[in-house]
Amino acid sequence: MKLEDLGEFGLIERIRKSFLKRSQRAPIGIGDDAAALSVSPGKVVLATTDMLVEGVHFDLATTDFYSLGWKSVAVNLSDIAAMGGTPLFCLIALAIPRRITVEQVSEFYRGGGALLRSHRVLLVGGDTCGSKQDLGISVTLLGEASKKRVLKRSGARPGDLIFVTGTLGDSGAGLEIVRNGKPDKKRASAGTEHLIERHLRPVPRVAWGKKLAASGLVTAMIDVSDGLSSDLGHICEESGCGADIYADKIPLSKALRSVKALRRLELEYALSGGEDYELLFTASVEDEKRIKSIKTGATVIGAITTRRGMRLFFPTGEVKALEQSGYDHFRATGRGAGK
Amino acid sequence: MKLEDLGEFGLIERIRKSFLKRSQRAPIGIGDDAAALSVSPGKVVLATTDMLVEGVHFDLATTDFYSLGWKSVAVNLSDIAAMGGTPLFCLIALAIPRRITVEQVSEFYRGGGALLRSHRVLLVGGDTCGSKQDLGISVTLLGEASKKRVLKRSGARPGDLIFVTGTLGDSGAGLEIVRNGKPDKKRASAGTEHLIERHLRPVPRVAWGKKLAASGLVTAMIDVSDGLSSDLGHICEESGCGADIYADKIPLSKALRSVKALRRLELEYALSGGEDYELLFTASVEDEKRIKSIKTGATVIGAITTRRGMRLFFPTGEVKALEQSGYDHFRATGRGAGK
Repeated sequence: MKLEDLGEFGLIERIRKSFLKRSQRAPIGIGDDAAALSVSPGKVVLATTDMLVEGVHFDLATTDFYSLGWKSVAVNLSDIAAMGGTPLFCLIALAIPRRITVEQVSEFYRGGGALLRSHRVLLVGGDTCGSKQDLGISVTLLGEASKKRVLKRSGARPGDLIFVTGTLGDSGAGLEIVRNGKPDKKRASAGTEHLIERHLRPVPRVAWGKKLAASGLVTAMIDVSDGLSSDLGHICEESGCGADIYADKIPLSKALRSVKALRRLELEYALSGGEDYELLFTASVEDEKRIKSIKTGATVIGAITTRRGMRLFFPTGEVKALEQSGYDHFRATGRGAGK
Repeated sequence: MKLEDLGEFGLIERIRKSFLKRSQRAPIGIGDDAAALSVSPGKVVLATTDMLVEGVHFDLATTDFYSLGWKSVAVNLSDIAAMGGTPLFCLIALAIPRRITVEQVSEFYRGGGALLRSHRVLLVGGDTCGSKQDLGISVTLLGEASKKRVLKRSGARPGDLIFVTGTLGDSGAGLEIVRNGKPDKKRASAGTEHLIERHLRPVPRVAWGKKLAASGLVTAMIDVSDGLSSDLGHICEESGCGADIYADKIPLSKALRSVKALRRLELEYALSGGEDYELLFTASVEDEKRIKSIKTGATVIGAITTRRGMRLFFPTGEVKALEQSGYDHFRATGRGAGK
């Protein structure tokens, strides 16, 4: 169905019906000038917003609408996870060009809605409007956290160990695979499928973020959205320190190591691929065992240094300066969709 | 300066420096994965988001960047005002094409920042990214209100009087004037300047909204963003009632009545021009005097009816059905920029 047949208010009514209208937590939800929301007494409200633009962050030739809705929500949930918070409420604004159908918009909300529901997050508002050219998506996520347990980027101290959850580089490799033409189901290996899945439908580490914050052991945390080198750089800048990373300690998935025909070295995807949405955090050496007992599957990949700058150590003894190589939206040339 | 010379992180640093980094109300502001915000105990959090897209909501040929920043913030402040709330925190996400300069982006933040500061609202976060074609703006506003005093669209009761603040139609007429080529300073009348100002830099009625909510007298409220007929229609739908409006009671500015060479009748701008950002609300007949003592300058324009549908009464005795004629983003054809 064409959106012009349903109309703006018809679309809003459809979205509203497929989500909860109000609850005790959200006495006013979709359909008023603003939502009214209850947060727990004594907690701070966490707020984050991310914009995703067609041709810049995604390409409709390489993603389906369900995955696009999922990912748009995931990148924001990941920001709440990186603070150690509990996500609660979501607002979604869409700028929709005429070529997009009602069914495609519904798939977008079905994908985003599935991830929101799995985290008990309520969709409480948003905006829908037209767009001349490109599909534009803006998601705002609100959450809460205990004020004393919020994890910032700025608390890392020299000597702290650097941890990362999961594996890095899968999403960047997955992006390259879908760009080169997604292999058909029969030909695709399980590894290839895994990398594509990690790129299209990343899993935000909300439960791990909360556990790490509750432990009181973590000194700084960020999610890996721009790439390890860039995001670790943010921790270093905000904490006024540097970092040494051991190349052979960076966790790589079996899938990334097994898939042939990738253009770059596995390590390059891990350092600068971005969009892994794993948690990167620091804690003191004394707390390493206690951190590992939290069961986030986090790996130690290096240590924070007094000396500014980041260095990458190889098992051969070689040492390289690690530059912040993540994506810069205004400096990028010719990279096209992908961040 | 070109944005590619400053870079994404250079731009964020610039924005961050020109706004408060943190405060007691916002222990974590711009520059982390999410902002951490304090709201008053016992209050509900209000949240609203609006997307503005180049070529749909605005045209860079007819607005300056200062006004664009101002208006992007104003439309969201107006949503908080319509709930009777106090705006507190703002997040701004921009998708910026390469032709936009650093100076233009700075002007945008200067305009938005001026309005935010005048309401003591803190800019606490956002996002900046590239865009292939059009400038995209997404603003999220968070506020608070006492739970029992939040004003919804759904509380109007048959017999209630319908009030509106200020004057209607100015913004729609102002849009037509700028579209037809803004007259130069010497030739423009004070009236013309007033209509243009009302279109480019609307004033959200935050203080009035708070006073009306605090009075406990208002039964339903909305802001006039889509146009009187459309927004009154929302109150009727949500409240399950109808409305009778008296055409000669609709407040029109001296400017709108004096400016010649407008294509449509003054009343048409008032009914469907939209973007006036005045407050439209209902209260019982018994409370008319008390409402007027609140000094919002509100005018009674009609009454809520049991009978569904909206009717427009003329002094001649003529009665017309009032259709919801506001802008529909997906049905509009050929109207171009303007909503």
